[in-house]
Amino acid sequence: MSSQKITEGDHVLLYLNQRKTYLVKVEAGKTFHTHKGFIKFDELIGKEYGSTVASNTGFEFIALKPLLRDYIMKAVRRTQITYPKDIALIVMFSGIGPGSRVVEAGTGTGALTTALAHYVKPNGRVYSYEFREEFLKTAEKNLKRANLVDFVELKNKDVTAGIEESEVDAVILDLATPWLVVPSAYKALKPCGTIVSFSPTIDQVVKTVEALNANGFIDTETVECLMRGMQTERGKTRPQTLMTAHTGYITFARKKAVK
Amino acid sequence: MSSQKITEGDHVLLYLNQRKTYLVKVEAGKTFHTHKGFIKFDELIGKEYGSTVASNTGFEFIALKPLLRDYIMKAVRRTQITYPKDIALIVMFSGIGPGSRVVEAGTGTGALTTALAHYVKPNGRVYSYEFREEFLKTAEKNLKRANLVDFVELKNKDVTAGIEESEVDAVILDLATPWLVVPSAYKALKPCGTIVSFSPTIDQVVKTVEALNANGFIDTETVECLMRGMQTERGKTRPQTLMTAHTGYITFARKKAVK
Amino acid sequence: MSSQKITEGDHVLLYLNQRKTYLVKVEAGKTFHTHKGFIKFDELIGKEYGSTVASNTGFEFIALKPLLRDYIMKAVRRTQITYPKDIALIVMFSGIGPGSRVVEAGTGTGALTTALAHYVKPNGRVYSYEFREEFLKTAEKNLKRANLVDFVELKNKDVTAGIEESEVDAVILDLATPWLVVPSAYKALKPCGTIVSFSPTIDQVVKTVEALNANGFIDTETVECLMRGMQTERGKTRPQTLMTAHTGYITFARKKAVK
Amino acid sequence: MSSQKITEGDHVLLYLNQRKTYLVKVEAGKTFHTHKGFIKFDELIGKEYGSTVASNTGFEFIALKPLLRDYIMKAVRRTQITYPKDIALIVMFSGIGPGSRVVEAGTGTGALTTALAHYVKPNGRVYSYEFREEFLKTAEKNLKRANLVDFVELKNKDVTAGIEESEVDAVILDLATPWLVVPSAYKALKPCGTIVSFSPTIDQVVKTVEALNANGFIDTETVECLMRGMQTERGKTRPQTLMTAHTGYITFARKKAVK
Repeated sequence: MSSQKITEGDHVLLYLNQRKTYLVKVEAGKTFHTHKGFIKFDELIGKEYGSTVASNTGFEFIALKPLLRDYIMKAVRRTQITYPKDIALIVMFSGIGPGSRVVEAGTGTGALTTALAHYVKPNGRVYSYEFREEFLKTAEKNLKRANLVDFVELKNKDVTAGIEESEVDAVILDLATPWLVVPSAYKALKPCGTIVSFSPTIDQVVKTVEALNANGFIDTETVECLMRGMQTERGKTRPQTLMTAHTGYITFARKKAVK
Repeated sequence: MSSQKITEGDHVLLYLNQRKTYLVKVEAGKTFHTHKGFIKFDELIGKEYGSTVASNTGFEFIALKPLLRDYIMKAVRRTQITYPKDIALIVMFSGIGPGSRVVEAGTGTGALTTALAHYVKPNGRVYSYEFREEFLKTAEKNLKRANLVDFVELKNKDVTAGIEESEVDAVILDLATPWLVVPSAYKALKPCGTIVSFSPTIDQVVKTVEALNANGFIDTETVECLMRGMQTERGKTRPQTLMTAHTGYITFARKKAVK
Repeated sequence: MSSQKITEGDHVLLYLNQRKTYLVKVEAGKTFHTHKGFIKFDELIGKEYGSTVASNTGFEFIALKPLLRDYIMKAVRRTQITYPKDIALIVMFSGIGPGSRVVEAGTGTGALTTALAHYVKPNGRVYSYEFREEFLKTAEKNLKRANLVDFVELKNKDVTAGIEESEVDAVILDLATPWLVVPSAYKALKPCGTIVSFSPTIDQVVKTVEALNANGFIDTETVECLMRGMQTERGKTRPQTLMTAHTGYITFARKKAVK
Repeated sequence: MSSQKITEGDHVLLYLNQRKTYLVKVEAGKTFHTHKGFIKFDELIGKEYGSTVASNTGFEFIALKPLLRDYIMKAVRRTQITYPKDIALIVMFSGIGPGSRVVEAGTGTGALTTALAHYVKPNGRVYSYEFREEFLKTAEKNLKRANLVDFVELKNKDVTAGIEESEVDAVILDLATPWLVVPSAYKALKPCGTIVSFSPTIDQVVKTVEALNANGFIDTETVECLMRGMQTERGKTRPQTLMTAHTGYITFARKKAVK
């Protein structure tokens, strides 16, 4: 799909161990400082992805090609975290894929936007609403880093004032008041289009489900997803000690043809 | 993305309620029998997706455009069930997207294959190994129904004898002995390529993780995912009473450049 | 603690396998019919607990001495199920033990009452309110079977009209409107006494927590407990496929000295 | 059950908030230092439990009567944590209650011992094995503080060398190699006696279950318990963000009369 050699301008994931990784842009002649010494980018350029490079203090880093999940995790800042597990389910529930036209609100720092763009490319498009300008700027930066900005239209608008697109395949809501957007989502969607909403509290879910049922949506369903890591080692295998107990609830529905 | 009117040859999801849906092919002049009476396909042809049609006994069905999740759920037969939640995570962990080249083993009835094809189209390709011919036939039927067969090469071969492709982006394992495929997966993958394995038992996970760590993979991680439905109704909101407690563990790793 | 030989009048748990057990009273000269043939009680009398007895069709049953958990599971009928896991936590949160005086509402069929009586005996006492007379009769039967009726005062009264006891150690609420009982629970409790409420819906929990915080209780805490069975067999170990996803939420608080 | 006024020598739980509590012994003329100033014990003596006392810097603490759960949580040091949720289930599964005779191994710092003693008093007895003398000393201190030391026989012995008691109601195992104790547990138990083992890893569980099935136990069952806190507040209700994902597996079995 893409070049196997690390070249100037690429983003690489410097991997020390599972807890310590850095997503950096390779710039000729420059160095990157970590808490385990610095790395010279010139030592990376021209090498194969997956190669090892040593810091000046002798720690070995592996230069990985970033995956979608890496971009998502590194994009997450400042706003509520939508974990890859939730993003994966949101994408699956939405039914979108290459070529889909999707409305998203709100953009936040672009973690979910990155995933949506990744899956609708090359012919689809994401229309992402965010009324807070500083978030949009961060999102744009994150989308550029993931090389996905061309598939997204970032819109500095309040989505509760209306959705400008029509005949879209899916509307994805990740904002504090999703129920306010339900009527305009109905109008924006093509028949059988999907709506997926992500909310941390029960009260948001109840209001959203009520709005969906009152506005021509059917097949409404709410789930939560718990992901637990396993420590896997012969003779010591066990679930990990700590986990994220809650991120949010995912609500799904489909548009009926006539309300 | 596709036509909004139901036409002869389309597959529609006849929706009575959340528990009772039928994935059927629309054939002019024919009828479809349900436990709530029969439906004449001629009454569907030319209607908008999302429209309502009544059976001869007066029950109303909504004719929905099937989503990926519907194809997955309806494809599941005869083999162990890989739930949409697991498929969503497998896809996310793998890092694949439009254009990716992916090896899958085994095909089974094609539920996961359907999802992989959905996300790699239009320019990517899934190479799917299955040594049991009768499964391959079912998988082919399911892929055709989902209109995704063109993006998949179904291979009636035993993957433990070797993977024929090279420089692939990801190898996805959903078979009883994933550890046996790890060395050839390493050879088939491009640098930083991903491997994702799905197994129901702990013992399979331990053997697979050992094989990964011994064969040049890094960043190995195993998770399990629990999805719980919520019954959402003002004044009665609560998690649902029953859930699937276990489907399987998902193990992920990346290929290092040099073992 | 008690005689090891099975004697007339004892209750035994006839165990065919983990899914098929019968809690029966041993009566001389009589037989007990199962779907695997009948058993003559005379063959049990005088034998050690844990002995095997064969039905007339040759199936082997083990005559077990019933444990608290067996009485609880067999007492559960007709009303919402309070699982042993929840009962265990309710007892732990309440802080009660031998000698405690406890108010319970409502009695239901006596599953939780059985556990409370088991732990407060021989010197403690359970005051259990239930306004539906037919439930009280079932509860009494279940308590007698578990040989615990002497430690319980079954009260055919509506607890929302007030609690008659005072200086009790704990108040346990398992009814539809726990928040209505909070003010009288405060009066009935000794200082630092505990209140534990069990409710299936979120809305009940929110109302109860609000009532607790408004009525002189502190340290309020709500939890839910998920118990998952493991299938344990070398080479095939994995969590079980199905589980109960929800029974109810447990809310705990302590009485402050002065509101 | 016990005096309502705080008296010299009592243990009280000084409660600042849910995250900050202190279990202290009241000593006339002395003070207790917290990070929010110090408290004079003389101001507590003679007051009702549940009363409020201010530190010299004006922070209010409530003087609570410690519950079993408080003693357990404060006893937990230095060894693996057995959470109250697990202790509650272990007690329930074991079937023990007032009057039971129980063998425990190993004692650790006495958290589980405290619970066992609490439930078997006043006529039962806990025989607790621990070969590491320093742990036994801590356990003894913790049991004294909870006023339960009279119901426990602390034994500085290696339980894998044998159990000295016989005809006990239950054997509770919380040590690294429970399977080694299974044969002597069988001998120590009365017919239908119970064995409950707590282990963090899958491998321990498999070995223990194999030993149980090979040594005359039946009805073997393994579970794990997940407890999740709820943040309960009208309009903001949701599960808490973090939880303990794993403490250990609980395995239960009953002794058959003849192996």
